[in-house]
Amino acid sequence: MKLADRIKNLGTETAFAVGAEAAVFAAEGNKVYPFHLGDLNLPTPENIVTAAEKAIKDGKTGYCPNAGVPALREVLAEDINQARGTDYTMENVVIQPGGKPVIGKFILSLMNPGDEVLYPNPGYPIYESQIQFNGGVAVPYSYKEGSDGFLLDLDSLEKLITEKTKLLIFNDFQNPMAAEASEDELKKIAELAIKHNLYVLCDEAYFDMRYSGKSKSLASLPGMKERCVILYTFSKKFAMTGWRLGAAVAPKDLAAIIGKLNTNDESCSNHFVQYGALAGLTDSQEPVMAIVDELRKRRDKGYEILSSIKGVKCFKPETTFYLFPNVTEAMDNLGFKTYDEFRLAALKETGVSFCTRLHFGSELPDEKNKYVRFAYSGINIPEMEEGLTKLKAFIEK
Amino acid sequence: MKLADRIKNLGTETAFAVGAEAAVFAAEGNKVYPFHLGDLNLPTPENIVTAAEKAIKDGKTGYCPNAGVPALREVLAEDINQARGTDYTMENVVIQPGGKPVIGKFILSLMNPGDEVLYPNPGYPIYESQIQFNGGVAVPYSYKEGSDGFLLDLDSLEKLITEKTKLLIFNDFQNPMAAEASEDELKKIAELAIKHNLYVLCDEAYFDMRYSGKSKSLASLPGMKERCVILYTFSKKFAMTGWRLGAAVAPKDLAAIIGKLNTNDESCSNHFVQYGALAGLTDSQEPVMAIVDELRKRRDKGYEILSSIKGVKCFKPETTFYLFPNVTEAMDNLGFKTYDEFRLAALKETGVSFCTRLHFGSELPDEKNKYVRFAYSGINIPEMEEGLTKLKAFIEK
Repeated sequence: MKLADRIKNLGTETAFAVGAEAAVFAAEGNKVYPFHLGDLNLPTPENIVTAAEKAIKDGKTGYCPNAGVPALREVLAEDINQARGTDYTMENVVIQPGGKPVIGKFILSLMNPGDEVLYPNPGYPIYESQIQFNGGVAVPYSYKEGSDGFLLDLDSLEKLITEKTKLLIFNDFQNPMAAEASEDELKKIAELAIKHNLYVLCDEAYFDMRYSGKSKSLASLPGMKERCVILYTFSKKFAMTGWRLGAAVAPKDLAAIIGKLNTNDESCSNHFVQYGALAGLTDSQEPVMAIVDELRKRRDKGYEILSSIKGVKCFKPETTFYLFPNVTEAMDNLGFKTYDEFRLAALKETGVSFCTRLHFGSELPDEKNKYVRFAYSGINIPEMEEGLTKLKAFIEK
Repeated sequence: MKLADRIKNLGTETAFAVGAEAAVFAAEGNKVYPFHLGDLNLPTPENIVTAAEKAIKDGKTGYCPNAGVPALREVLAEDINQARGTDYTMENVVIQPGGKPVIGKFILSLMNPGDEVLYPNPGYPIYESQIQFNGGVAVPYSYKEGSDGFLLDLDSLEKLITEKTKLLIFNDFQNPMAAEASEDELKKIAELAIKHNLYVLCDEAYFDMRYSGKSKSLASLPGMKERCVILYTFSKKFAMTGWRLGAAVAPKDLAAIIGKLNTNDESCSNHFVQYGALAGLTDSQEPVMAIVDELRKRRDKGYEILSSIKGVKCFKPETTFYLFPNVTEAMDNLGFKTYDEFRLAALKETGVSFCTRLHFGSELPDEKNKYVRFAYSGINIPEMEEGLTKLKAFIEK
């Protein structure tokens, strides 16, 4: 079978292989502590389930408009405006079967083959895959350690911009680093985007997953709404990962194009699921607060143990459900040269399963530190405590 | 905003505009008889709803594997084998959020820019859109009137094949013509595909929508399984259009690529919906038979009235839920030169709303006859009778 040439440029999420290895290890009778997954082990709030079931009974089982149910688009625009200080209307909102489809549709709509696209590395691996699959040149930019979290390396980023640079992918509330831009950093990014006429994908999948303070959107800065596409998802905030619902929030002319891509790709998103999401947005936000409260406790527990391990340096982020400790010293102490040696030994010796920096892109030329990612979305506190205590003993042995 | 060049090649389904016009006409206080929609006004069978709701309660609200829930893939492979006489396994089955995504993924996997792709015209408009959007050359092939249905124009089709022809899109149980290939036609298509080394998309969205006889799949012919991708959908058979669930059934190496595209495009299809579909396949088929029985009655009623109208010539197909009458004489008698004149006059005078041949591609150079499409999936028999009787009076006035 002769595949199309573009297929050789198609990437994937190698993190799934980590899950598969953990499953094999568990099937051999071992206890596994799953820190590898960006999925939630919390149930979807009951009011959302009830509203979706009611929608099925009300006959919302046929097609809906390609851009989504109008009532949901309207309410989501309002919700986004309240949280971000923007002034979107429903014409800006195009419902998607998840947040992820926004990545490909943003790139397809705005990038020509040969265009350069800036994307974060370490970062969500689908950015690089979709840029290269669609003929673009993926240009990684990096973060560096600050005093209490990761900082955008803005000087380096600016130097990467050429006349071929057309797009910037910006994932504030970042996966895997849990980095969050300061107001100054946001201003600087906006300046760069305007100066170099870049369109920006604001992947805000974790905008609402935060434990103190308030999220701010790049799209809310002067002159940015016209050049930003927000990736919104119901997955994390409402524990709806498997329901597959999200949205692109874009300038109107671009939103119309994204709607046309919907017509081509999947007709529309699941009809009745949208009524569940509508209830999620309009009903009491107590279930959402309960999800965030549980995740805050997990973050505290994960941070507490990880930061106590000799040779492990860990920030305490206020957002996402990831911890991204620097394990350079720990790996040195244990004599591990490669990420996979460390990761697989930890799994075998302790049952703790996690992703490494390599699951979020290739190491950059000047990269010296080693990092791994602990997702605490899919594991309860007692198991976190048990697993991380074993990991501590393993690393400090 | 400077859009990517490829966007100018993006097509759409203009049929949605017909729905919008009908909605405006209805909002003005007029009765509309909706024959324009390929959607079903029948409820999803209760056992499917119950199974999906149980899956939510069982926590199937997180991600599932990119290719779908293993149990569903296995049962669907078996179901397809029983209906088609093939020998697929779950490795051949990749679950999708609808049947439609299979079109784009087939093309992305196998077509290089500049490759020629044969597609039916009149036909589902997304074929042409996806071919051109992804840089291919869309080469239309046509059907002609036989004695009791439309026939593939196989001699013409063969003449269209060049050394650049790589793919054939074949929609047996055809939308909009309700055409169905004979065994001889299938053999001839298989011969052509093998001789010219073409990969074939078998769009079998309507395979199970039939009123007598038995559907046969091109993929079941010797040497074809290796070069066919079946587009399967739960939408029509189970009245699940708005649930968005389908599958690509492909050779294993290609199925793996399509799964990788899933990881890039939407991660996975809705998790709990797949348990609904599983129940649909494994439970009693009585609800499915009830859907087909209702549609058979509608087909009979539609055929009865349309074929009685002076200047209208209508076949009585055993498959799909479309009638595609030849209205050349009727339009001549009424003095209508263009499709839109006829369509809009019919809407205004009778409330009957339908699509024309132009919603399924541009007229071919040698095309003399005029056709319109009546979908009877979204209208009950009393309304069919009322609307078509008014249409008869309008045409025969």
